[in-house]
Amino acid sequence: MIEQQIKDAIRDIHDFPKPGIIFKDITPILKDPELCHNITEAFMEQVKEMKIDAIAGVESRGFLFGLTLATRLGIPFIPVRKAGKLPYTVNQKIYELEYGTATIEIHTDAFNPGDRILIHDDLLATGGTVTATSELIKDMGGEVAGFSFVVGLSFLNGREKIEPINDNIIILADY
Amino acid sequence: MIEQQIKDAIRDIHDFPKPGIIFKDITPILKDPELCHNITEAFMEQVKEMKIDAIAGVESRGFLFGLTLATRLGIPFIPVRKAGKLPYTVNQKIYELEYGTATIEIHTDAFNPGDRILIHDDLLATGGTVTATSELIKDMGGEVAGFSFVVGLSFLNGREKIEPINDNIIILADY
Repeated sequence: MIEQQIKDAIRDIHDFPKPGIIFKDITPILKDPELCHNITEAFMEQVKEMKIDAIAGVESRGFLFGLTLATRLGIPFIPVRKAGKLPYTVNQKIYELEYGTATIEIHTDAFNPGDRILIHDDLLATGGTVTATSELIKDMGGEVAGFSFVVGLSFLNGREKIEPINDNIIILADY
Repeated sequence: MIEQQIKDAIRDIHDFPKPGIIFKDITPILKDPELCHNITEAFMEQVKEMKIDAIAGVESRGFLFGLTLATRLGIPFIPVRKAGKLPYTVNQKIYELEYGTATIEIHTDAFNPGDRILIHDDLLATGGTVTATSELIKDMGGEVAGFSFVVGLSFLNGREKIEPINDNIIILADY
């Protein structure tokens, strides 16, 4: 039911960000406060059996439900940002994109060694950024407790990429 | 009391992003779920007399408490993003920075004409981005109901800049 509500809200944008790509625009979800509430509740229901100590949210759209969830669960929120945005000392991970590389960073004191961390983003596409996030968290002594996404694009095989890391994968609406 | 809790959490980062600047790092707040809860409650208390139809949150850090608040209030969240990030048709505003210009965008259908909108960001510095946001909202037929920030740096005179737009200004911790 939540899956259908999300799919009804999402709209396809053709040729964004590049010709030939059909982009799933999640912003209509944000216009619908009842749906935002239902998404939060659906996540709460699905994470309650997972023992998690913190939620890592990937900039920018992972900040949206990420902090709401962390606050509701009473656990810390870890901002995962692009290079140069976090002001304190950071650990970083460089990862491959289709063309070139990207870098993500986490503050060195963002969590404690051994913490079980749920990695959150709005949408799972190829899984590149969340895989890099999971590697960075493990480099820093954390444990990856699982992944959560509002939307998954299964045809891009992101799930296959992250399953070996941890198969606790929450996807509220999968394509 | 909330003001002191926030100030106790924030840390000063010297020479970020440039030499001579003391940056107020709000990320320790995100590590403290009780403080995040208290911040949300403080905002809820302060906005309850304001008649607002939607909250506009400025990328990226305005996404953090912005969506939490909008969901709690049962009103839409409007993402305000840098150029090229929003996939659907947009309205944009170009504004001056210390060196050069920046561009912000809002989806053309993000709100309805006449909607009273609260502009939210984590921190008020010189007020450049939120002033541009307020101009864009007015260009699009919206009304600016006020502004809300977790932190204000009064010595940078952002308040003086936004007061003429609307003096409903919530700053939980002011320096």
